Amino acid sequence: MERKILLTHCPDAKGLISKITNICYKHQLNIMRNDEFVDYDNGHFFMRTELEGYFNDHTLLADLDDALPAGSERRLVPAGNKRVVIMVTKEAHCLGDILIKQFSGAMQLDIAAVIGNYDALEDLTEKFDIPFHSVSHEGLNRVEHEQKMVEIIDEYQPDYVILAKYMRILSPDFVARYEQRLINIHHSFLPAFIGASPYRQAYERGVKMIGATAHFVTNELDEGPIIEQDVIHVNHVFSAEDMAKAGRDVERSVLSRALNLVLEEKVFVYGNKTVVFK
Amino acid sequence: MERKILLTHCPDAKGLISKITNICYKHQLNIMRNDEFVDYDNGHFFMRTELEGYFNDHTLLADLDDALPAGSERRLVPAGNKRVVIMVTKEAHCLGDILIKQFSGAMQLDIAAVIGNYDALEDLTEKFDIPFHSVSHEGLNRVEHEQKMVEIIDEYQPDYVILAKYMRILSPDFVARYEQRLINIHHSFLPAFIGASPYRQAYERGVKMIGATAHFVTNELDEGPIIEQDVIHVNHVFSAEDMAKAGRDVERSVLSRALNLVLEEKVFVYGNKTVVFK
Amino acid sequence: MERKILLTHCPDAKGLISKITNICYKHQLNIMRNDEFVDYDNGHFFMRTELEGYFNDHTLLADLDDALPAGSERRLVPAGNKRVVIMVTKEAHCLGDILIKQFSGAMQLDIAAVIGNYDALEDLTEKFDIPFHSVSHEGLNRVEHEQKMVEIIDEYQPDYVILAKYMRILSPDFVARYEQRLINIHHSFLPAFIGASPYRQAYERGVKMIGATAHFVTNELDEGPIIEQDVIHVNHVFSAEDMAKAGRDVERSVLSRALNLVLEEKVFVYGNKTVVFK
Amino acid sequence: MERKILLTHCPDAKGLISKITNICYKHQLNIMRNDEFVDYDNGHFFMRTELEGYFNDHTLLADLDDALPAGSERRLVPAGNKRVVIMVTKEAHCLGDILIKQFSGAMQLDIAAVIGNYDALEDLTEKFDIPFHSVSHEGLNRVEHEQKMVEIIDEYQPDYVILAKYMRILSPDFVARYEQRLINIHHSFLPAFIGASPYRQAYERGVKMIGATAHFVTNELDEGPIIEQDVIHVNHVFSAEDMAKAGRDVERSVLSRALNLVLEEKVFVYGNKTVVFK
Repeated sequence: MERKILLTHCPDAKGLISKITNICYKHQLNIMRNDEFVDYDNGHFFMRTELEGYFNDHTLLADLDDALPAGSERRLVPAGNKRVVIMVTKEAHCLGDILIKQFSGAMQLDIAAVIGNYDALEDLTEKFDIPFHSVSHEGLNRVEHEQKMVEIIDEYQPDYVILAKYMRILSPDFVARYEQRLINIHHSFLPAFIGASPYRQAYERGVKMIGATAHFVTNELDEGPIIEQDVIHVNHVFSAEDMAKAGRDVERSVLSRALNLVLEEKVFVYGNKTVVFK
Repeated sequence: MERKILLTHCPDAKGLISKITNICYKHQLNIMRNDEFVDYDNGHFFMRTELEGYFNDHTLLADLDDALPAGSERRLVPAGNKRVVIMVTKEAHCLGDILIKQFSGAMQLDIAAVIGNYDALEDLTEKFDIPFHSVSHEGLNRVEHEQKMVEIIDEYQPDYVILAKYMRILSPDFVARYEQRLINIHHSFLPAFIGASPYRQAYERGVKMIGATAHFVTNELDEGPIIEQDVIHVNHVFSAEDMAKAGRDVERSVLSRALNLVLEEKVFVYGNKTVVFK
Repeated sequence: MERKILLTHCPDAKGLISKITNICYKHQLNIMRNDEFVDYDNGHFFMRTELEGYFNDHTLLADLDDALPAGSERRLVPAGNKRVVIMVTKEAHCLGDILIKQFSGAMQLDIAAVIGNYDALEDLTEKFDIPFHSVSHEGLNRVEHEQKMVEIIDEYQPDYVILAKYMRILSPDFVARYEQRLINIHHSFLPAFIGASPYRQAYERGVKMIGATAHFVTNELDEGPIIEQDVIHVNHVFSAEDMAKAGRDVERSVLSRALNLVLEEKVFVYGNKTVVFK
Repeated sequence: MERKILLTHCPDAKGLISKITNICYKHQLNIMRNDEFVDYDNGHFFMRTELEGYFNDHTLLADLDDALPAGSERRLVPAGNKRVVIMVTKEAHCLGDILIKQFSGAMQLDIAAVIGNYDALEDLTEKFDIPFHSVSHEGLNRVEHEQKMVEIIDEYQPDYVILAKYMRILSPDFVARYEQRLINIHHSFLPAFIGASPYRQAYERGVKMIGATAHFVTNELDEGPIIEQDVIHVNHVFSAEDMAKAGRDVERSVLSRALNLVLEEKVFVYGNKTVVFK
């Protein structure tokens, strides 16, 4: 017996749930959990089906292709760990959290490698017997620097690339290469405080809450599809540095929750938005 | 075109989603939203289906009864306003909130009447042209007092009876009469601080959060199926009275959210728990 | 015995707490609660002192003026209800909440009057025996329209003017007239989604939380000093209309909490920020 | 220049703030932050004063003793890192979080040692070059087992002992030995679900939120003074195991926030409650 996840999205039509679940039933697959959503504004249908049983992927997908309308997309992916590469700069809190979670089996991932543009987190990474690649941007232009990182990433063939406080802007080419596979944690409640120094901006604006946003990266700065967000209360006692310190706990929690959702294949990217089946 | 909600729950079996959605498809009903859940611990299946189209209730339900396993229960209810009777004592915040929401069309209900064991809220209720029945418990035993209230309630034939800070314990007979239709707001985060004076108890325990719980009433004190809960942070500065004052905002919010869920038929009661499709 | 609140702010210097509390002690006033804060970035000191006793305001303030450094500001205000005028457009939820709170004695205010640029809320206001002034903007330019409202407001001499979902932009003259006395509820988590239709903007951006912000009004659109903010989680199921509906509960809660803070004199406005002693 | 924290509590009396701040002023100490609170129910005064300057501890404390009423207690402690010993069983999430925080300088502590009644976390601890003592309870009675741990703890002379998911009940003698220095994280929103298996209890009760509580340990099971609490929303989809998994993030966040408060000397223990100056 195996467990796989079927992800379907297509233009909305009558009877889609019925058609898809009929096919699963016909294949004697047990539906362990099913979620669906119709975006009526855009006439689009999304369904995530957790299946258990003996799979013949080829005929299952062929049957689905016969039944579904033109323009449908479907994926059948095994449940279980995904392979990731993590990119960092100097801050330890997000990377540290993911390392501890992998160590204790609390997250469905295998960290293939960590890449840093500084070596500040080399020591921490190697404590957990994970290769660390220090790829300094010093003396390189963006294309050259990214080229070196791409070579390393692609060697590991990761399912996802996680920007765990990687603090440099990435080029359109890099972003395009890992479309829908590149996840960032931004240290503000987007779309507030786009760009650099969001805690400084928050402090100067005098906000009473600060937050963090995990999102897929696109070529609009801090504008990709949002996966998860959260906030905490602050007040006049907080300096910009206090906000940054308090914010780190939200950042790692939001990134961690977003990763769980992505790794468990609960997220559809759709235009500049996500459909997330929690 | 009408909109109705089909609520099905039954022992789990293979192919249930497929069977039910097939029948809807055959009846040319559009599924506007569908949610389902399987409780694997107890082998039980729940499904809520929002349908749009031209309904033949009789044949639709007959088709379902043919398809579903023994022990199934299904209801087909029209979307739209439900009729309620509200029971109160002296506090205005929950009643006031529901009155304002009905006034501005923000909640799917029609308040048929308000019953108070004091007349403290008569004036407020009548501002909104809703009948208020003052049924004092003075000089009456519990059976007599409830008998008078039951006569009033039953005259209005409500779908639900809402205890909006009704501060007397109800008899098993009363509770049984309105099984799964009697909703209470308890001013604590149950199961903490069961019984009287929860804010006093919370103050004395020195908790850092206080909460509220909306639940269906059963004959275990403060032990019915929970619909919704929420909390707010408090600290050492709060007296028991301050906690009560701050708590009122949580109480009315939690009751209001619970009522929305119940009125939109998003809640299944199952044993001492609920399945809530938010 | 009276209770008054002493609000002091001045350039920071050594011994300020000692000097101020010495004077209170000398006047045989009991300090019931004291809060202070130093903004070291700007070298500014803030203190709020709740006093109980027999007050000679004149000599107390004279003693403070002698002791405090140049550039100090101090106010001594009686604890208790403040007089307010409320401005509205069509939405009932914030006004309704304040009306219910005044009705049940849950907020330290006396609503002198409600002014609407439509008459949609006249009926609701008058249920509570509060004068409603309908001042349509139809056929008037901004100056003329505001002039009519100013005449009404000033007749009531309110301590504060509350914009409880008043949906028109106010002129610099109007804003200047009620400086630090004009409180608005904005239906987003500022600085995200400034301006019109924030729920529509939030929907289109695909955010996972929506919020509300209560702030003093200045002549920068949605840019005044923030008093209070809060958020709720949303997801892909929410249409822009669903967000607006869910958001109303946050709006009224945030406005209500902000008003409590302002009415209890717990808020200092300082530059474009606030110091709030919760 | 040094920074120290003066912690004073005593029976309430007129002029206390004035007297204490006068003495600080006389000693030419700068008050960087001051917080005070009067518990009027019990007539007790609390004050925390962050001071900067050149300290003569002996004369400062002598001056305070002269000025303060009988029954006063005051402590003057240096700001900065505290020394801790951490006790664990098998779960890595709380220990891992504290290790990462010490590694990145994000918490004011020095971990002197970790003690486990299993060796499950030895490997993790030693990655960070911190001594791990495995003290199995197998074959020992409670007194013998605790005696072995006490010997290890006392050798390190910690300021605080942290129970980071140490899953055995401690004897009254052990608890008394580390009075007000022993901090526990309990995996429920106390006082709900006292004792073992709180997530199982929460699941069976069908609650819609689960939480965690950090508290000082006393000899009443899960009844010590609460420092910090928080909750997250759950629903019918969560099994008891899912609740435990989701709960781990709240546990470590709550413990982490409580430790920050304790390590920064912001917590007074008073009867069975705490006064916490956030």
